[in-house]
Amino acid sequence: MSSSFGEQIKISIFGQSHSEGIGVVIDGLPAGEKIDMEAVRQFMQRRAPGKQAFATARKEGDDPEVLSGLFEDMTCGAPLCAVIRNTNTRSQDYNQLKEIPRPAHADYPAMVRHRGFQDHRGGGHFSGRLTAPLCFAGAVCSQILKRRGIDIGAHILEIADVKDEAVDGVNVTPEELLKVKQKDFPVMDDRAGQKMIEAIAAAKADGDSVGGIVELCILGLPVGIGEPMFGGIENKLAQIVFGIPAVKGVEFGLGFEAARVRGSENNDGFYCGDDGKIKTRTNNHGGILGGMSSGMPVIMRAAFKPTPSIAKEQDSIAAATKEETRLRITGRHDPCIVPRAVPCVEAAAAVAILDLILLEK
Amino acid sequence: MSSSFGEQIKISIFGQSHSEGIGVVIDGLPAGEKIDMEAVRQFMQRRAPGKQAFATARKEGDDPEVLSGLFEDMTCGAPLCAVIRNTNTRSQDYNQLKEIPRPAHADYPAMVRHRGFQDHRGGGHFSGRLTAPLCFAGAVCSQILKRRGIDIGAHILEIADVKDEAVDGVNVTPEELLKVKQKDFPVMDDRAGQKMIEAIAAAKADGDSVGGIVELCILGLPVGIGEPMFGGIENKLAQIVFGIPAVKGVEFGLGFEAARVRGSENNDGFYCGDDGKIKTRTNNHGGILGGMSSGMPVIMRAAFKPTPSIAKEQDSIAAATKEETRLRITGRHDPCIVPRAVPCVEAAAAVAILDLILLEK
Amino acid sequence: MSSSFGEQIKISIFGQSHSEGIGVVIDGLPAGEKIDMEAVRQFMQRRAPGKQAFATARKEGDDPEVLSGLFEDMTCGAPLCAVIRNTNTRSQDYNQLKEIPRPAHADYPAMVRHRGFQDHRGGGHFSGRLTAPLCFAGAVCSQILKRRGIDIGAHILEIADVKDEAVDGVNVTPEELLKVKQKDFPVMDDRAGQKMIEAIAAAKADGDSVGGIVELCILGLPVGIGEPMFGGIENKLAQIVFGIPAVKGVEFGLGFEAARVRGSENNDGFYCGDDGKIKTRTNNHGGILGGMSSGMPVIMRAAFKPTPSIAKEQDSIAAATKEETRLRITGRHDPCIVPRAVPCVEAAAAVAILDLILLEK
Amino acid sequence: MSSSFGEQIKISIFGQSHSEGIGVVIDGLPAGEKIDMEAVRQFMQRRAPGKQAFATARKEGDDPEVLSGLFEDMTCGAPLCAVIRNTNTRSQDYNQLKEIPRPAHADYPAMVRHRGFQDHRGGGHFSGRLTAPLCFAGAVCSQILKRRGIDIGAHILEIADVKDEAVDGVNVTPEELLKVKQKDFPVMDDRAGQKMIEAIAAAKADGDSVGGIVELCILGLPVGIGEPMFGGIENKLAQIVFGIPAVKGVEFGLGFEAARVRGSENNDGFYCGDDGKIKTRTNNHGGILGGMSSGMPVIMRAAFKPTPSIAKEQDSIAAATKEETRLRITGRHDPCIVPRAVPCVEAAAAVAILDLILLEK
Repeated sequence: MSSSFGEQIKISIFGQSHSEGIGVVIDGLPAGEKIDMEAVRQFMQRRAPGKQAFATARKEGDDPEVLSGLFEDMTCGAPLCAVIRNTNTRSQDYNQLKEIPRPAHADYPAMVRHRGFQDHRGGGHFSGRLTAPLCFAGAVCSQILKRRGIDIGAHILEIADVKDEAVDGVNVTPEELLKVKQKDFPVMDDRAGQKMIEAIAAAKADGDSVGGIVELCILGLPVGIGEPMFGGIENKLAQIVFGIPAVKGVEFGLGFEAARVRGSENNDGFYCGDDGKIKTRTNNHGGILGGMSSGMPVIMRAAFKPTPSIAKEQDSIAAATKEETRLRITGRHDPCIVPRAVPCVEAAAAVAILDLILLEK
Repeated sequence: MSSSFGEQIKISIFGQSHSEGIGVVIDGLPAGEKIDMEAVRQFMQRRAPGKQAFATARKEGDDPEVLSGLFEDMTCGAPLCAVIRNTNTRSQDYNQLKEIPRPAHADYPAMVRHRGFQDHRGGGHFSGRLTAPLCFAGAVCSQILKRRGIDIGAHILEIADVKDEAVDGVNVTPEELLKVKQKDFPVMDDRAGQKMIEAIAAAKADGDSVGGIVELCILGLPVGIGEPMFGGIENKLAQIVFGIPAVKGVEFGLGFEAARVRGSENNDGFYCGDDGKIKTRTNNHGGILGGMSSGMPVIMRAAFKPTPSIAKEQDSIAAATKEETRLRITGRHDPCIVPRAVPCVEAAAAVAILDLILLEK
Repeated sequence: MSSSFGEQIKISIFGQSHSEGIGVVIDGLPAGEKIDMEAVRQFMQRRAPGKQAFATARKEGDDPEVLSGLFEDMTCGAPLCAVIRNTNTRSQDYNQLKEIPRPAHADYPAMVRHRGFQDHRGGGHFSGRLTAPLCFAGAVCSQILKRRGIDIGAHILEIADVKDEAVDGVNVTPEELLKVKQKDFPVMDDRAGQKMIEAIAAAKADGDSVGGIVELCILGLPVGIGEPMFGGIENKLAQIVFGIPAVKGVEFGLGFEAARVRGSENNDGFYCGDDGKIKTRTNNHGGILGGMSSGMPVIMRAAFKPTPSIAKEQDSIAAATKEETRLRITGRHDPCIVPRAVPCVEAAAAVAILDLILLEK
Repeated sequence: MSSSFGEQIKISIFGQSHSEGIGVVIDGLPAGEKIDMEAVRQFMQRRAPGKQAFATARKEGDDPEVLSGLFEDMTCGAPLCAVIRNTNTRSQDYNQLKEIPRPAHADYPAMVRHRGFQDHRGGGHFSGRLTAPLCFAGAVCSQILKRRGIDIGAHILEIADVKDEAVDGVNVTPEELLKVKQKDFPVMDDRAGQKMIEAIAAAKADGDSVGGIVELCILGLPVGIGEPMFGGIENKLAQIVFGIPAVKGVEFGLGFEAARVRGSENNDGFYCGDDGKIKTRTNNHGGILGGMSSGMPVIMRAAFKPTPSIAKEQDSIAAATKEETRLRITGRHDPCIVPRAVPCVEAAAAVAILDLILLEK
C-alpha cells in the first residue's frame, strides 16, 4: 500500500502539500508508554522549514494535534492519530505544474498514474512536506526505543563534496549522537559544517542546488533483531528510507566500498569485550549480519540528490500537447534539503526499528 | 514475515542449506500464463554452482519439481510450489560452526536469535543456497513480464576494482541485455571480464575472496508504476535485493554520485521523442521519479561484499565459553559470488516488478 | 493489526469515544472517483444517534472533515483522511468503569490487555462510536461500487423475535434496497417494524435491551470475485462484520439452516436466463460458491446481541480488589442498536467488496 | 492473498486435488519448539478419508514429508514446509466438470475467474483435499499452544437435525475435549452419534447428502488476547474457518440466539472464583468480549452445508454453449463431510489462535 509501513506497528501517512491537513495514524503501539509531547515538538522542529538561511522561506507552525491514542499522556493501546494543519499555502505558485512537469520531480509519472486527477499543488502527496508526519511518528517511536536502551542519531556526512568526519562505528556513544542532535547544523565537525553552509549559499546564489549524504547510527540494539531474508534490518531500513523524497542510494557498514576489498579485510573477527559481550574490533558489517543485529552499532548512509526545484530555467514539456518548453520554477525551495533530512532519516529508522523490536517473541 | 515478499503476488521461500529440500510458493500469479519450464531451468542454471573454475565445487542438479499451480504448463490460479531437493550435502563440514560463528556470517546473531535451535549446517536458512528458489520465482515472473513487454537484465559492473562498462541508461536495448545473459561470465566488455576472472583467481590462490557490484536494468515499464512513499519501485527493489546474502548497498540512477552534483546537472529535462513519447536526454534519475517509473530504463546497482567464507584463518570466539579462538573454515566456497549473484538480482527484480505491475488497477 | 482492514484499499480507523476526535484513513482508492460529500453525510446520518426515540440521547453532529485525498471533489490517488470531532462527551458518566467492568462489554479484557492504561471513558476505542468512521469509509466505497454497477443494501430482519420479510435472494432489485434505505426504520414490512419499535420501547421501559438480526444484500457483483481459501467473500465479509460491536454470528445464504437440509434440497441447479446469464432458480448458496461470487445476489445475515449497557443493576467486580459488587450503569444508551447497525453492516460490506473488486487483475 | 493466512505466523497452502502434491509453508514459528511428528500424523488421520463407511472411498496415505523448518525434531526458526503427495487420483472421473459445473461447487465461478485455465480435476485448488495441509499446520500449532496451556477441541454438535449435547461453556475441561478427540465419530453422546451415522447412511442410500454443525471449544487462553476491531478472536476465527469448504455460518457464544434474548439475560455478570480468577457464571459471550478473550472458554459453532457432490441427477449447464443439461456426478464423495471437518475446525482455530498469541508483546 502506498503510504503505510510496518507490521507490528503500522504507520499510515496521509495528506497533500496543500490539502486541509497532513498527518499520521500509528497503530500497534504498546499501551502504557509515556509520550513527552514537548520532546516530539522539538524533534519536529529540527525538520521544520524557515529557521535557517539555507532553507525554504515557507514558515509553518507544524504543530501536531493528537486526536487519539493518548490518554493522560500515555499510549492507551488505541491507534494514535496526529494532524498538522496546512497553512501558509500559496497554491498559485504551482499553477503551471498542472501542465508542465518539473524535471526530477514526481509530477510527470504522477500525472500519468492518476490520469490527471493528482493534486498537483506543491507536489501533492509526493511533497517533502509529508516528512513532517513521518517525523512525528519517528519522534514517538524514538521515545519508546530510548526507554528500551536504543539510541538513534544521524548527521550530515557530506554536502557538495565537503565531508564531515564519519561516525566511529566501533566506539560511538549515545552522548555523541545527542550532541549532534542539538546543533542547528547537524555535523560532527563544525568547520566542515561551515564549508557546507558556504557551498549551499553558493549554489543558491547560482539559482542552483546541492545534495549530500546522511549517516545514521543506531546504538543499543539487542543481538538477533531482524527477520531473515526480506524482513531484515537492511531490508526494512532501506524500504522506509527510500520513502524520504530525494534518496537515491542506501548502504550499510562499508557499503559500496565493501565491493572493493578482500574478504580478509572486510570480515570483522569476533572477540570478547571486558564487559563479557561478543564484539568485533572493526565494524565493516555495519552492525548487521544476515539481516540481523550483531550487537555492534548499526551504520547506514543515505544519498540525497540535489533539490530538484531550482531557480534556473530547465527543459520540460507541456504534458497535454507534448510541446517542448522552458520551465522556470517559482515558489520557495531549499537549495539543499540534507540538513532537514537528518531528523527524517532518524525518524524513519525509529519506526522501522520499533517495528522489528516488537516482532520479537 | 521473514521469508515472504510481495502483496499482489506473494513468494514464500523455505528451506535450509542441508534440510530435505528448499523451495518456494508463489501465490497470486494470474491464471493462463504459459510457463516454459526449460527456460526456467536455464535461468536457474546461470546461478547454479559448480560450473565455473571460480565457483564452489558443490555440484547440485538444482532441478526444481513443480508440485502445484501449473496445469498443462499454464498457471491455473492456484499457488505454484516448486521444490528442489538438497543432495550432495556434507554436513560434517559445518560441525564446528555450531559453536564458533564465522566472521561476517549470520551464524552469531542467528544463534542468539534462535537460542541455539537454529539449523547451523551450511548456514541453514541464511545460506546463499536459498537464492535458488528465488531464481525459480524470478524466472517464472520474468516470463510473465516479458509477455507484457518488460525486459530485465543485469551484468557484473565491477569486481575487485576492475570495472565493466556501465549500461547506457538512455539507449540500452533488450538485445544488449539478452546478449550479456547468454554469457558464462556476464559482463559487457569481455576483456574487463577476463581481468575480473584473474582477480578472483588471485584471491582464491591467497585463500581469500573478493566482492563486486551488479548493475540491473529494467526496460519497458509503463510510466507511473510504483506506489508512492513506502511502496515505490526503489523501496520494493531495495527491500527484496537486500534479501540476497552479501548485499551491502543499493543505489538508483546516479545513486551516491547524485549527492555530489548540482541540481542543474542532476535534473533530467524532458523532451518529446520521435515516437511521441516523453523522455529525458540523460537518465540520472534511473528511470524512477517519486518512486514511480518515468518510462526511461530503470537502473539499479547492488554492492556485494566479498564472500565471508575464506580459507585464511580468522579470529572468532566459542559462543558458549566466550573463549577467543582461531577459526579455519573448511568446506566449499566461492571466492567471489558476484557472477552467480547476477541472475539472483534479476530474479529479485522480476518478483518485485511483477508485484507492482499487478497492483495497477 | 488491530484497527486496519484491507489489502487493495486499506482503512485505518482511529479514535476513542472521548478523545479529541475519531476518523479513518482510506489508502489505495483509485484516482478520479467523484465523491459526493452530501451523500456521504446522508449515509452517516442513518447511523447517527439521537434522531429516534429508541436511540441514545447523545446528539452529535458527526460531521466529517476531509483533511486529504480529495482534490476538487475527486479522489486524487493520495490517502483520504476524514476526522470527526468528539463533542458532547460526558466523561464523568464513566468514572466508575475505570474500576468496575461492565458485563458483556470489552472493559475487563481491555483492562488486562492494556494493563490499566486503556482509555476507559465511554468504552474508549471499543466504543460503538467508532462505527462512525467505518460508515464514512463505507459511504465513500459505496459510491465507487455503485458506479461499477454494484448495489449494497441491508434491513432489520429481526428484533426481539419479531421478524421482517426476508429479502428474496433470487429476484431482489436495487430499487427495493434503495427503498428500505430511505426509511427511518429500515424494514421491508412496516407493520413488522412497528412491532419491533414497540418491543424496543418495552425493553427500555424495563431498563433492559434487545438484539436482532441484520440481513445484507449485494447486487451486481461480477462472477468470480473473491480469493480462494482465506480471502473469499465470506472470509472477508465475516472478518470485517465481526468488527462491528455486538455481532455474535454471521451466515450466508441458507446459513445455519443449510446444516439441516439434504444436498438435493440445498444445491442450486444452474440454468440460463433469458438475458443469456447463467443463474440458479434458488439461492441457498447466498451468491457465493467456493468463496467467489456466482452472479446471484449475495445474502448475509449478522446477529447482534442486545445492547450490553442496561439500566438494570448487574453483578460485577472491582477489578483491583476483586470484590464483588452491584453495578448500575448510568449514561445514555440505545435499548437496541440494531436499527443504527444497518448502515454499519452496509458500510463494512462496501469496504470489503471494493477491496476484493480492486484485487481483480 | 488467496491461500495465505496470518500475521505472526503465516501459513501458505498450496496444491490442487490432482497436482503432484499439496502442502503448506508455515513461516514465523518460534524456534525451539519440539514437534512430535507421530502426534501430527494422528491428528491428520482424524481427517483422512477412507477409514469410515460414511466417508469417501478415496484412500490416501496423506503422509506429510517435512522438507524444512525442523532440525533434530525442533523448530529452528526457518519456515516449515510439509508436502503430501497426491496418489490414487482418478482424474478421468472429472472430465465432464471441465465443461459442466457442479451445483453448489466452486466450479462455475472458478471457470469465469480463471478464464478456463483453472485445474478442474477434482475441484482443483478448491477441493476439500486442501484441508489436509491445513490439518498439518493446525497439528503443529496445537502442540505449541498445548505447551502454553491452551487446549482446543471440537465435536459434531448436529447432523441432519440429530443433536449432540452442547459443550458446557462454563465447566468444560481439557479432559472432556481429549475424550471426544479419541473417538472415531467425535460426539459427546454416542447414542446421538449412532443416530447421526444412521442419518448419513440413509442419505447415502438415497444418493443424497447431509450437513451439520461443528462446535469448537478453546480452553486456557489468557485474558486479553485478540486485537480490537478487525483483528479480534471472532474476526480471525471466522476468517480462517470460512476457508474450510462448505462452511456457511459461524457464531460465538449464544450466537444467533443472542438476537432473541434481552440484555439482562444475555449479559454474563462477573464474580471472583475460588481460584482468585475473575469469571462469569454463564458464558453467553462465548469467552470473547470486544474481540478479546475474557478467560472463559471460547465457544464457536460452524455450520456445514450438505456435501454438494451427490449421486442424484441435477440441473446444470454446459458453460460454453449455455445449454441446459442434467448432470450425474460420478467419483467418490462423502455423504457427509462433518465428521472429517471436526479436526479441520480445530486446526483452523489452532493456527488463528497461535497467530494471535504471538502478537502479544
